[in-house]
Amino acid sequence: MSTRPYGRLRRQTNELFNPKTGGRIGHYIDWFIMSLIAANVAAVILETVDALGTAYADFFYWFELFSVVVFSIEYIARIWSAVDDSEYQGPITGRLKFASRPLLIIDLLAILPFYLTIGGVQGELRFLRALRLVRLFRLLKLARYSSAMQAFGAVIRQKKEKLVIAVFANGLLLVIASSVMYYIEHQHQPEAFSSIPAAFWWGVATLTTVGYGDVHPITPLGKFVGAIVAVLGIGLFALPASILASGFIEQAAAAGDDDGPTYCPHCGEKLE
Amino acid sequence: MSTRPYGRLRRQTNELFNPKTGGRIGHYIDWFIMSLIAANVAAVILETVDALGTAYADFFYWFELFSVVVFSIEYIARIWSAVDDSEYQGPITGRLKFASRPLLIIDLLAILPFYLTIGGVQGELRFLRALRLVRLFRLLKLARYSSAMQAFGAVIRQKKEKLVIAVFANGLLLVIASSVMYYIEHQHQPEAFSSIPAAFWWGVATLTTVGYGDVHPITPLGKFVGAIVAVLGIGLFALPASILASGFIEQAAAAGDDDGPTYCPHCGEKLE
Amino acid sequence: MSTRPYGRLRRQTNELFNPKTGGRIGHYIDWFIMSLIAANVAAVILETVDALGTAYADFFYWFELFSVVVFSIEYIARIWSAVDDSEYQGPITGRLKFASRPLLIIDLLAILPFYLTIGGVQGELRFLRALRLVRLFRLLKLARYSSAMQAFGAVIRQKKEKLVIAVFANGLLLVIASSVMYYIEHQHQPEAFSSIPAAFWWGVATLTTVGYGDVHPITPLGKFVGAIVAVLGIGLFALPASILASGFIEQAAAAGDDDGPTYCPHCGEKLE
Amino acid sequence: MSTRPYGRLRRQTNELFNPKTGGRIGHYIDWFIMSLIAANVAAVILETVDALGTAYADFFYWFELFSVVVFSIEYIARIWSAVDDSEYQGPITGRLKFASRPLLIIDLLAILPFYLTIGGVQGELRFLRALRLVRLFRLLKLARYSSAMQAFGAVIRQKKEKLVIAVFANGLLLVIASSVMYYIEHQHQPEAFSSIPAAFWWGVATLTTVGYGDVHPITPLGKFVGAIVAVLGIGLFALPASILASGFIEQAAAAGDDDGPTYCPHCGEKLE
Repeated sequence: MSTRPYGRLRRQTNELFNPKTGGRIGHYIDWFIMSLIAANVAAVILETVDALGTAYADFFYWFELFSVVVFSIEYIARIWSAVDDSEYQGPITGRLKFASRPLLIIDLLAILPFYLTIGGVQGELRFLRALRLVRLFRLLKLARYSSAMQAFGAVIRQKKEKLVIAVFANGLLLVIASSVMYYIEHQHQPEAFSSIPAAFWWGVATLTTVGYGDVHPITPLGKFVGAIVAVLGIGLFALPASILASGFIEQAAAAGDDDGPTYCPHCGEKLE
Repeated sequence: MSTRPYGRLRRQTNELFNPKTGGRIGHYIDWFIMSLIAANVAAVILETVDALGTAYADFFYWFELFSVVVFSIEYIARIWSAVDDSEYQGPITGRLKFASRPLLIIDLLAILPFYLTIGGVQGELRFLRALRLVRLFRLLKLARYSSAMQAFGAVIRQKKEKLVIAVFANGLLLVIASSVMYYIEHQHQPEAFSSIPAAFWWGVATLTTVGYGDVHPITPLGKFVGAIVAVLGIGLFALPASILASGFIEQAAAAGDDDGPTYCPHCGEKLE
Repeated sequence: MSTRPYGRLRRQTNELFNPKTGGRIGHYIDWFIMSLIAANVAAVILETVDALGTAYADFFYWFELFSVVVFSIEYIARIWSAVDDSEYQGPITGRLKFASRPLLIIDLLAILPFYLTIGGVQGELRFLRALRLVRLFRLLKLARYSSAMQAFGAVIRQKKEKLVIAVFANGLLLVIASSVMYYIEHQHQPEAFSSIPAAFWWGVATLTTVGYGDVHPITPLGKFVGAIVAVLGIGLFALPASILASGFIEQAAAAGDDDGPTYCPHCGEKLE
Repeated sequence: MSTRPYGRLRRQTNELFNPKTGGRIGHYIDWFIMSLIAANVAAVILETVDALGTAYADFFYWFELFSVVVFSIEYIARIWSAVDDSEYQGPITGRLKFASRPLLIIDLLAILPFYLTIGGVQGELRFLRALRLVRLFRLLKLARYSSAMQAFGAVIRQKKEKLVIAVFANGLLLVIASSVMYYIEHQHQPEAFSSIPAAFWWGVATLTTVGYGDVHPITPLGKFVGAIVAVLGIGLFALPASILASGFIEQAAAAGDDDGPTYCPHCGEKLE
């Protein structure tokens, strides 16, 4: 390990970004970046409210600039100091290997759109507006800090096979229900049920029990089939939720994580 | 312990309000206050029905007055007799300490609005109407008597970490879904999707599967994204319910509370 | 036990209606009465379809007459032969005691309306139409034959305490949500939110996620509160369903009823 | 076993269609047929989109022809080579026995409609359009390849008794709720609640919480009853979903299939 100022700074930077060696300052940096991400999302949301978007246009612009600068520094610092990690040695190859990790690619995607819009890419306005939406991807940067997201991902991976079964069965029901309904209702509602893909809109609204009411069968046969589909939908479309829930429960048991202290159901007091 | 009439009365009052020492009379007082709370809530609700509100205006007024008097006596009696509890000794400091307990603050909030409206606070009519709503807080007084509420609170505390995961994932999905839908539908439905916060209304209605139908995508792309969001919503938004349910089940097992006798699933008879 | 023809017939009748001693003929009688009940319900339903109700008015009348005669014979035979059961001895007192059992009262309610309409009770047409509805109570006669209904009743009895908790919490949420929404929306939608009881209609539609869409908040604050209520509704209103489900699962385990053979999840073959 | 070229080819064909002896080529054939089924379903769906249906009419026709030829060859090859299986010996009787297996009947139904339309059956246009829908049955051919479908069928068979209970209770609630609502709302909404079967449409939409909003009670009593029905619907109609979910969980445990490796809920890493 280098002991020159340059090398020491790089090593300290590397340690700062590692949860195990970051210490208090690393912890503060984490919280600062998480807060900045939350504030960025809030800004993207509030900017679309006309009254706010025009009145505080300057503020939103400078806040965006500030955020991009911070995220850029963070990105460069992570790449630069990566070589102090034994896994990523070699000034070029090590850093490239590090930069191609999913979390680092998300970091890049969070700042790249800004540079594209100012750096000569003179696209259409529509394209630029789409890039604004991409700023919401900064939310994904939270994945690094949030153990919750990782627990969620773990459950999905563990229950993958069962989820695939449930999703496949649901897809089958959706295709069959929508197709049958198309053949029944097409002649009576040529607009709402113009094609099978259009009938999918009714199928999803019914099977998920959202039921906006903009499309629904009007013939007696269509209502009869629709009723059966709605009943089947409850049984099938609730399955993925149940599977995910059972995954969370099993995982807690497996990890010996017994959800903290138990509380008495009668008085609400902690049980020893 | 004082043996003078004053002291004896205070001690007996203290015992009356303690479930362990209240005896039969304490039990009757509990039931009387619970019934009065229920009647108060019914009065608040029925008063808003025009036909009833005007015809029985006098009755509602006197009933309110009666209730406030009873609740005030209860509040004062509790505070006054608190010093007989070893935890709250000292005529002033002990009573202040007792008065700052959550249940006592609720008791105060249940009567305070009445005194504010008659005691010189000449606010706007709008403010006075809001105070009426506050009377519903009297429902929270039930928390003292209801072990059900406490069991519920215990489950929430025990499953806090998992609930936070679920709520966070749901919030993330809501933000992303609503933002994407805003960018897709804004140009075609500038009123319904006027901003991302406005799009949240669609997002919540869809993810919770309430689906009022006042706002829904009309473009093919919007419907496609909306269908995916609806399907994801089922999986994610049902998680908190599953987590709460598992909490209730686990707690019953932990407390050795085996739900009373088991009944035969075939004949409905009690199993020994 | 009497050996005279009268006594033997009465004893045989008593045995026929007892599942343990009824034998094959008792089994056929059970199936005949169950089918007649199902046919009765179908008749009540189909009679309301104008085209069928007028075209087959005679058929429906004679079928009703036939059904009442059969159910009357069944009722009288059960009461008459009850005294052969050691529990119900005494020609008058034993039979009265037997007649006051819930299942027998249902049997009586299933035929009484018919006798009221022909036996001199000259009520309004409205009253007579309501009596028709009562014929649906004949469905409840199925309770005697259906072990499924009894298993269901057993689960409800076993989980009573938890169900009460869930129903109470849901009721609390409904009252508070509807009241708050009334105060927010009353001025902007004086018809839809004319009173708190009227707001309950919105509250139930939202908390159950039915969401007809005939009533929904239109103010920003109302939408904000409505969104929160909808999210809470998912968590709370799904609880009773989860509790019932856990009851069914536990009961199956307790009764050693392991749901018949296990099937391989891969090939669908029975596992030994 | 025959060693002549004819016999050898037949035996090799039989082995190809058997997952245990098919080897790599059998695996490729399976994947080709599965892909063709998926493409067929996509074609049926996309053909109904006017713009695509007319522009690519020729393509859809030739693709249908190609598919039928492939599926016909597959069907004939399976029947022809069946006699090499010891279970289906005898050139005629063995093959007929094999052809009457459910999976083979599905195979036949997937190609039969095409031959009916070209082979002289000059039915109405309406009949021909219905035959198109039948092409969707080709999806059922997937049942042979999908272990997921079989696992699903196994769970349904295992939980049959409980599912019947739940479905029966739901049916009872639906009949009673719709009938009561018919008697309440018929006079005020003679079109929407024209008969009890028509009221079923409201009943299903409410009990499944789909709530399109095209039919809903408008009288105070109707709303009161409707609210109760909606609340009961949540409890009852979610039961089948819970029962299916518990079946999946139990089956995984019984088969010792512990869902692959466990992942840490905190870091998302695999646990040893």
